[in-house]
Amino acid sequence: MINITFLGTSDAIPSAKRNHSSILLNYDGENILIDCGEGTQRQFRKARLNPCKTTRILISHWHGDHVLGIPGLLQTLALSGYNKTLFIYGPKGTKVFMKNLLNTFVFTGGYPIKVEETNGKFFETNDFYLESKRMTHGVPCNAYVFVKKGKIRIDKSKLKKSKLPSGLLLRKLKQGEDITYQGKKYLAKNLTFKEKEKKISFVLDTSLNKWIVNFVKNSDLLICESAFHSEFEAKAKEYKHLTAKQASEIAKKSKSKKLILTHISQRYDKNPKKILDDARKVFKNSFLVKDLDVLEI
Amino acid sequence: MINITFLGTSDAIPSAKRNHSSILLNYDGENILIDCGEGTQRQFRKARLNPCKTTRILISHWHGDHVLGIPGLLQTLALSGYNKTLFIYGPKGTKVFMKNLLNTFVFTGGYPIKVEETNGKFFETNDFYLESKRMTHGVPCNAYVFVKKGKIRIDKSKLKKSKLPSGLLLRKLKQGEDITYQGKKYLAKNLTFKEKEKKISFVLDTSLNKWIVNFVKNSDLLICESAFHSEFEAKAKEYKHLTAKQASEIAKKSKSKKLILTHISQRYDKNPKKILDDARKVFKNSFLVKDLDVLEI
Repeated sequence: MINITFLGTSDAIPSAKRNHSSILLNYDGENILIDCGEGTQRQFRKARLNPCKTTRILISHWHGDHVLGIPGLLQTLALSGYNKTLFIYGPKGTKVFMKNLLNTFVFTGGYPIKVEETNGKFFETNDFYLESKRMTHGVPCNAYVFVKKGKIRIDKSKLKKSKLPSGLLLRKLKQGEDITYQGKKYLAKNLTFKEKEKKISFVLDTSLNKWIVNFVKNSDLLICESAFHSEFEAKAKEYKHLTAKQASEIAKKSKSKKLILTHISQRYDKNPKKILDDARKVFKNSFLVKDLDVLEI
Repeated sequence: MINITFLGTSDAIPSAKRNHSSILLNYDGENILIDCGEGTQRQFRKARLNPCKTTRILISHWHGDHVLGIPGLLQTLALSGYNKTLFIYGPKGTKVFMKNLLNTFVFTGGYPIKVEETNGKFFETNDFYLESKRMTHGVPCNAYVFVKKGKIRIDKSKLKKSKLPSGLLLRKLKQGEDITYQGKKYLAKNLTFKEKEKKISFVLDTSLNKWIVNFVKNSDLLICESAFHSEFEAKAKEYKHLTAKQASEIAKKSKSKKLILTHISQRYDKNPKKILDDARKVFKNSFLVKDLDVLEI
């Protein structure tokens, strides 16, 4: 199970209802924070989640509303006895910004922090990988995908018919090896199937560009900024942001299954449905999140 | 009228109930922010106050929980068209920290920021003044007082008896000048009185020292950190903080009228009365604030 908690869903200026950008992806011991706007550590508390379980921070770009929660979070981890290595990934410039950031207050530290500037696949286990792609936002900016790989699983009904015993032999089948049992050969491809991979994409702050669709192709969940309604398309272009309608067009063209709109302007605090309607005209399976919403996938 | 809004009342780690330190003092067009912990700009929104009315920021010290809201606030002021000079005061080191802080993200700026390191009286008008005093907290740290000066007022009952007309003559009396009207001399001291000054003191993060009492002497309102209950006195000393009991002893010795406890640890979230009781044993007129409480004085 992958859990996604929307810790903050506002745009550049937070409102009483929405905190600055931050999304937490939890999967099998990994707690990956995508952006960390001011106030994120307190959003953890409100969501009854422990910030000390954070394993990685992915930074889309260095505008204040996406990063100004980092120093406070790092300090709280230090005060709480965090003792793992914290991995921080971001676009070009991240190393210098991170160095500056730790000189802005009396940081007590106490645990290793590894900072990496990424473009392409940057972290991989047997089970999942993380990949980034440069976006277009006036400053270096990354979109990210989290891909849970499709594992090879035993087809239980076929296994039953085969009368193979459980144990070591099945483990070999899962690794794609053919096996021989009581003189009979069993082909892995006949007794197993490959799960579908799960892809979650995070597009936070960008203008429309030609390579977004390809990067987020076939997302199970496309999480996308939509700072503006399409009536402000010119303004969105000027400020290098997306409209809700553009986000929905990306969802449609990329054959994504579900679109989640975030990075919502306070101008829509009283009527968020306006943003949602803008997207649903093009892509029905669109949703708009509010702070502390949780999705399971 | 002086209005004081407690925007954040937590200690180093915020809780779901309490945001990091920040207090707003509003008086006659001045909006003076004392400390600006992470999330302060959003606390403004929750308090339905406009952060763009901020005129001055007073920084007690550069531990993260007291300053990490500054960059976000400065950015929001820029995005909102702030066009006055913003004055920032703090202890030694403030100029370097402020310079570093504006290099931690892509700050769009657009208005002048004046930074001053203070020790002693540092701002004065005809009506009020601001003064700072070094405290003891392991890093350079200031306590502050805001003093509304006592104005010379006309004694209305005596004026009635004197049968003097209103207007220019009264203005002279208010300035302390004696006047002559229809051949008769009127002494200013006989027709006026001096209002009492109002003193509000802010002691945020310090260990007990010999000069606090004198600095906050005769406060109408003594706002004081109390990170620990007196059962943790040794710990308070180790971390260079005050207990609630020590805060109340300062209130008593300084002949302050009212003590406000803030900078409260999450360990007391479920039983804040424990902290209050610790203070009231020594000084009855003690109160404990929560986020967004407002006091008028």
